Amino acid sequence: MDQGAAIQMLLNRVAITDLIHAYCFHFDRNEPAAVAALFSADAVVDYGPEVPDLIGAQAISAAIASGLTKTFAATSHHVSNVTITFDTPDQAHSICYLYAWHRYHNGAPDGELWGQYHHRFAREPDGWRISSLVLKAAGSQDFHRATMHPIGRR
Amino acid sequence: MDQGAAIQMLLNRVAITDLIHAYCFHFDRNEPAAVAALFSADAVVDYGPEVPDLIGAQAISAAIASGLTKTFAATSHHVSNVTITFDTPDQAHSICYLYAWHRYHNGAPDGELWGQYHHRFAREPDGWRISSLVLKAAGSQDFHRATMHPIGRR
Amino acid sequence: MDQGAAIQMLLNRVAITDLIHAYCFHFDRNEPAAVAALFSADAVVDYGPEVPDLIGAQAISAAIASGLTKTFAATSHHVSNVTITFDTPDQAHSICYLYAWHRYHNGAPDGELWGQYHHRFAREPDGWRISSLVLKAAGSQDFHRATMHPIGRR
Repeated sequence: MDQGAAIQMLLNRVAITDLIHAYCFHFDRNEPAAVAALFSADAVVDYGPEVPDLIGAQAISAAIASGLTKTFAATSHHVSNVTITFDTPDQAHSICYLYAWHRYHNGAPDGELWGQYHHRFAREPDGWRISSLVLKAAGSQDFHRATMHPIGRR
Repeated sequence: MDQGAAIQMLLNRVAITDLIHAYCFHFDRNEPAAVAALFSADAVVDYGPEVPDLIGAQAISAAIASGLTKTFAATSHHVSNVTITFDTPDQAHSICYLYAWHRYHNGAPDGELWGQYHHRFAREPDGWRISSLVLKAAGSQDFHRATMHPIGRR
Repeated sequence: MDQGAAIQMLLNRVAITDLIHAYCFHFDRNEPAAVAALFSADAVVDYGPEVPDLIGAQAISAAIASGLTKTFAATSHHVSNVTITFDTPDQAHSICYLYAWHRYHNGAPDGELWGQYHHRFAREPDGWRISSLVLKAAGSQDFHRATMHPIGRR
C-alpha cells in the first residue's frame, strides 16, 4: 500500500468509527431521525429473532422512535473492541463490542446487554453510511428481550 | 488536506485519546497530581450541579485528592466511543462515553455511572492538555451523587 | 519522525489494537487455539497470583480451553482505554482497561471484573504477536477468583 492509500485508509477508519459512535450518541439522546440518517437508503437492521428486519431508513427511524418513546426511559450504549476490515476502498465491515444499559418506562429493573454489533459500511458521495447492522448477544440480565442472535460460542 | 496535515491530525488524535486514558489511569491509581498535570493551567472541570466548578490545576488536584482519599476505596473508569473534532490544528473538543465503577470507603453498595465526558483540548508548547471537562450522566445506580448534568435526552 | 515512519507507526497501532480485540473475540467464542495463535511461541501469561504463569502457546491454549469448558458458560471481554507505547519499531507495550462479564456453568451469580491488561507485543515475520499479558484488577463482584494482581492504587 502506498503512503496516500494508507493515509486514506486510516482516515476512513476514523470516519467509520465515528459513525458507530454517532449511532450510540443519537440513540441515547432519543434522536431517531439522526440515527436513521447514518444508514444507507436500503440498509438492513437485524436486532434479533424477535423483531422483523428493518429495511430502509424510514423503517429504521420508525422502529427506533417507537422503542425510544415507549420502552426506554434512558439508555447508554458503550461500544469498544472496534475491529474494521476493508473489502474495497469504499466498502468495509466491522465487529465491535457493545455494553448497553437500559432503564425502562415500566419500572422493570435496569437491563444490561453484553454483545456485539456486526456492521457493514459503504462510502456514498457524501460520506460513509451503515449498510447493515446485526446485533448479537453474549448474555444479558433483566433485558427486555428473551431471545437474541448468539455470538457463536462453541 | 495534504498528506502532512492528515498525518499530523492522526498523530494528534492519538495524543488526545491517550490524554483521556491517562486521566482514567491516574485517577484510578489515586495519583491526583498526575491527573492535574494533564490539564491546562486555567482548565475548568464541571463534575455536576452538586459541585462547584474546579478552576485551575491546583483546585482540580485538591478536589480529586479529597475524593480519592475520603470517598473512594477503588474506582475504574472505562472510556469508549471517543469522538474527536478539531476546531483548529491546535484546539479540539471531544465526547466520549464513560462507564465508571466505584467502591466506597463507607461500605455503601458499589456505585455505577453510565455517562459521557465532554472535553476541550489545547496544544501547548509541551503537548496537548485538557482545557475543560464536563461530566454528564445517562444514568447511575447506587452512585454517591443524586443529581448530574443530563446527556440531553429528549 | 518522517512521514513514512509515522504512517508505519499508525498502521502498527491498528494491528496491535486488533490483536487485543481478537483475543477477546476468540476467548468469548470459546476458540482456545485461535486465542493461542495470537501469542509468541515463548509468550508468558499471568492471570493472577492464584494461577501459575502460562508459558508458551501450548500452555496458554490448554489453560484457556479448560477454563472455557469447565468454568464459563458465557463471557464478554470489553476492552477500552487502549494506550500503546513503542519501545522499538518492532516492540511495544500497552495498557488497556477490561470490563469482563462471566456467566458460570455452576449457576453462581454472574461475575464482573473491572481491571487492566498489561501487554507486551513483538513483530514477528508474519505479524504482531502478544509476547506477555498480565491481568490486574481494580475490583470485582461475584468473580471466581478471590485474589488478583492489584492495579497499584496508592
